[in-house]
Amino acid sequence: MTPTIAPAASYGEEARTLAALAVSAATVDGGVLSDGELAAWLEDRRRAQPQQVERVPFAGLSGWRFEEGTGDLRHASGGFFSVHGLRVHSDFGPVSEWEQPIVDQPEIGILGIAMRDFGGIPHLLMQAKSEPGNVNGMQLSPTVQATKSNYRRVHGGSAVRYLDCFRSPEPGAVVADVLQSEQGSWFLRKRNRNMIVRVGPEVEAAEDFAWLTVRQVNMLLKQDNVVNMDARTVLSCLPDWRADASALAGSLHPDAEIRSWITRRRAEHDVRVAPIGLADTQGWQHDPHTVSHVRGHHFSVVAVDVVSGRREVAAWSQPLIEPHGTGIAALFVRRVDGVRHVLLRARAEAGFLTVVELGPTVQCTVQNYSHLPRTSWPPYLDEVQNRRGGAVYDVLLSEEGGRFLNAQSHYVIIEIEDEAPLESEEFRWVSLRQVDELLRYSHNLSVQARTLITALRSL
Amino acid sequence: MTPTIAPAASYGEEARTLAALAVSAATVDGGVLSDGELAAWLEDRRRAQPQQVERVPFAGLSGWRFEEGTGDLRHASGGFFSVHGLRVHSDFGPVSEWEQPIVDQPEIGILGIAMRDFGGIPHLLMQAKSEPGNVNGMQLSPTVQATKSNYRRVHGGSAVRYLDCFRSPEPGAVVADVLQSEQGSWFLRKRNRNMIVRVGPEVEAAEDFAWLTVRQVNMLLKQDNVVNMDARTVLSCLPDWRADASALAGSLHPDAEIRSWITRRRAEHDVRVAPIGLADTQGWQHDPHTVSHVRGHHFSVVAVDVVSGRREVAAWSQPLIEPHGTGIAALFVRRVDGVRHVLLRARAEAGFLTVVELGPTVQCTVQNYSHLPRTSWPPYLDEVQNRRGGAVYDVLLSEEGGRFLNAQSHYVIIEIEDEAPLESEEFRWVSLRQVDELLRYSHNLSVQARTLITALRSL
Repeated sequence: MTPTIAPAASYGEEARTLAALAVSAATVDGGVLSDGELAAWLEDRRRAQPQQVERVPFAGLSGWRFEEGTGDLRHASGGFFSVHGLRVHSDFGPVSEWEQPIVDQPEIGILGIAMRDFGGIPHLLMQAKSEPGNVNGMQLSPTVQATKSNYRRVHGGSAVRYLDCFRSPEPGAVVADVLQSEQGSWFLRKRNRNMIVRVGPEVEAAEDFAWLTVRQVNMLLKQDNVVNMDARTVLSCLPDWRADASALAGSLHPDAEIRSWITRRRAEHDVRVAPIGLADTQGWQHDPHTVSHVRGHHFSVVAVDVVSGRREVAAWSQPLIEPHGTGIAALFVRRVDGVRHVLLRARAEAGFLTVVELGPTVQCTVQNYSHLPRTSWPPYLDEVQNRRGGAVYDVLLSEEGGRFLNAQSHYVIIEIEDEAPLESEEFRWVSLRQVDELLRYSHNLSVQARTLITALRSL
Repeated sequence: MTPTIAPAASYGEEARTLAALAVSAATVDGGVLSDGELAAWLEDRRRAQPQQVERVPFAGLSGWRFEEGTGDLRHASGGFFSVHGLRVHSDFGPVSEWEQPIVDQPEIGILGIAMRDFGGIPHLLMQAKSEPGNVNGMQLSPTVQATKSNYRRVHGGSAVRYLDCFRSPEPGAVVADVLQSEQGSWFLRKRNRNMIVRVGPEVEAAEDFAWLTVRQVNMLLKQDNVVNMDARTVLSCLPDWRADASALAGSLHPDAEIRSWITRRRAEHDVRVAPIGLADTQGWQHDPHTVSHVRGHHFSVVAVDVVSGRREVAAWSQPLIEPHGTGIAALFVRRVDGVRHVLLRARAEAGFLTVVELGPTVQCTVQNYSHLPRTSWPPYLDEVQNRRGGAVYDVLLSEEGGRFLNAQSHYVIIEIEDEAPLESEEFRWVSLRQVDELLRYSHNLSVQARTLITALRSL
């Protein structure tokens, strides 16, 4: 079980990419910006992007209205996204039937990071970008983060910079390009293209953009609320450059068994969803400022007015989803004969196109459980609480600030050294090589699991 | 570009499986049945499975009715499947908007083949099974071919034999287990689990079942209407044991480019579907015996009475879909520096969960085009017609006889030796190693493409 054989993918261009990424992750000197310059640039960008976000009543939204009859919240253009109701029947988990609001954004957008060599060291073009839902305004985002409406300029606004790098890449320049889901509890079948594309010296960093080494991005991933969700999910789709990921032997379960587990969880369970009118959604109440759960659980739909100096459109208003409470997403990591494995949980979420994806070991909002006996807690939540002091990663990160207001979660990675948690039908230890392959295809790892994989690679 | 390096998957159990499959595909002696015994068994089973299928008016269907209001065709139990209407908006292809009937069967069934060693040679447990829509009654099917309603015995009937091999396989016994789509023009988001599972000597062939070597299955694949669709799709999910498939180098396009092409085709196009009532489906007419297209195109919905001696239920009636005309599904194969590639086309079909899958080079019903000038034909159809005399595979095969009546297509494989057809955004040459990997994940190759890959491996 020695991780010495090169993986199949490691030939030609990909082998060179992996080697170069490893250098970029290790290099201290040779960056375009020194770490000091990077910190100053971030501070400078934060000052240069004043953004005012103000809560308003729904009646104060410009262009948005509750549709007659259904009560669905829609934009007058029919674009952007809508909020309607969803009726869910599920044989997965303790509640078999419920209704909830859901964000419906059927268009597939592009989340792309451009990669360029400087002195043979790959650098990633990161963008300082403000979003109305971010707790701190500006975070580090991918080179391009655009809905199809954005990039086709359906709603006006300026052209999306660097878009052509992703829509018309040079032959052989695509490093990763895969459709990945986003939060299945909040979005109905939302997918975005996650892309990494090599570019040449003709691509330069514009204002609000900077070339960072993988090491620098990794450093920022260890700070609260600096690297945004879109950047984290794209980074997870980079081929894994670390030695663990090239360990051909050493996976606890054969690859076919891991794929079979995912297939079985999808096939054996029924999760059926039907769109309903937002006005007809049982258990949810409307007032002039919010649509919220009658017992204050889950999340609310709210409205904000935004004035920004740095966006395609300078001022607008929009709905946002505001989760109640801070989430936790925790990943157990363990070495099996020297090869690192992560404990993933097969999760069903109502909005997943494929019903089930692999999520973190634990993912929940702790305050929903704190008044309940521990026997009612999600599996391993108490173990996460007990071991959190020894976590190797524990950072507060935000979900997408263009749709979610103050949506923060503690992302936690805990190394399990001694006894291993038992697997059950819902849990499997998956090696990092297996994770790397699963991430080349759509809908295998949830967006929270992808953030944790990006975080794990940063250590 | 020499195919000498073993692929990543070829370690441990999988390497042994590949080697054993190669032996099973090459072995002439050593089978459980000689070829003569196999032919006699097939003939004997055909005689032992008398089946009467008679067209009846919809009013003669027992348990099925057109629902008040919508006109949807449904079973009284709510089970099996239903036929309703679908409104389609598509920016893919010449027609941007249409309505059609579609078969809705949301349950995921199991299509499984058991594999057992006899004298070290893997044998596949194949079933002689009659279906009402088969032109010739009985065909060779997988060990298990069961909807969830079947195997949960929702509608009565006898227990599904061998089901436990697939629902509770031994640890490490799963060779393949993947959700794959079926015809996206006829089914709405239909998926079945395609499984191959190793079993031990405790599993014996019951009446109507026989253990065949891979070579024997390959031999039967060259005969018209012997191996059914369900068997063909499961066989395509076997890991590819041939030398081409282990060629690590030699793919015309890097793997990342092929994945990117699939992602781009899914992301850049909009195919939106909305269920509508069958009675409201524009362009389709109802009479006592059929629901059919007003100009006689596409297919009809019809009803049959069935009496069978060999099914879970001895007599029943059901609707079937009857396509108009015989289809053609053709695959171009070409060696690039000695490594075989197939020309796949990215196809959008209204019923695909993921909008686009890779299909054959050409897939159509020729008589829909024969009165039109060649410039209106699908790309490469004329080339298929011109070169068909030299085809290396040209066999008439049926689609699933439990849902489709007399649905036959000519499956054709043509080797392109000289000049290669040009690629365009819709077409790519994909190596057999790349095909093998794509088939380990869901929704990459359509059911017609999977039949052609199985056929290609049989040569």
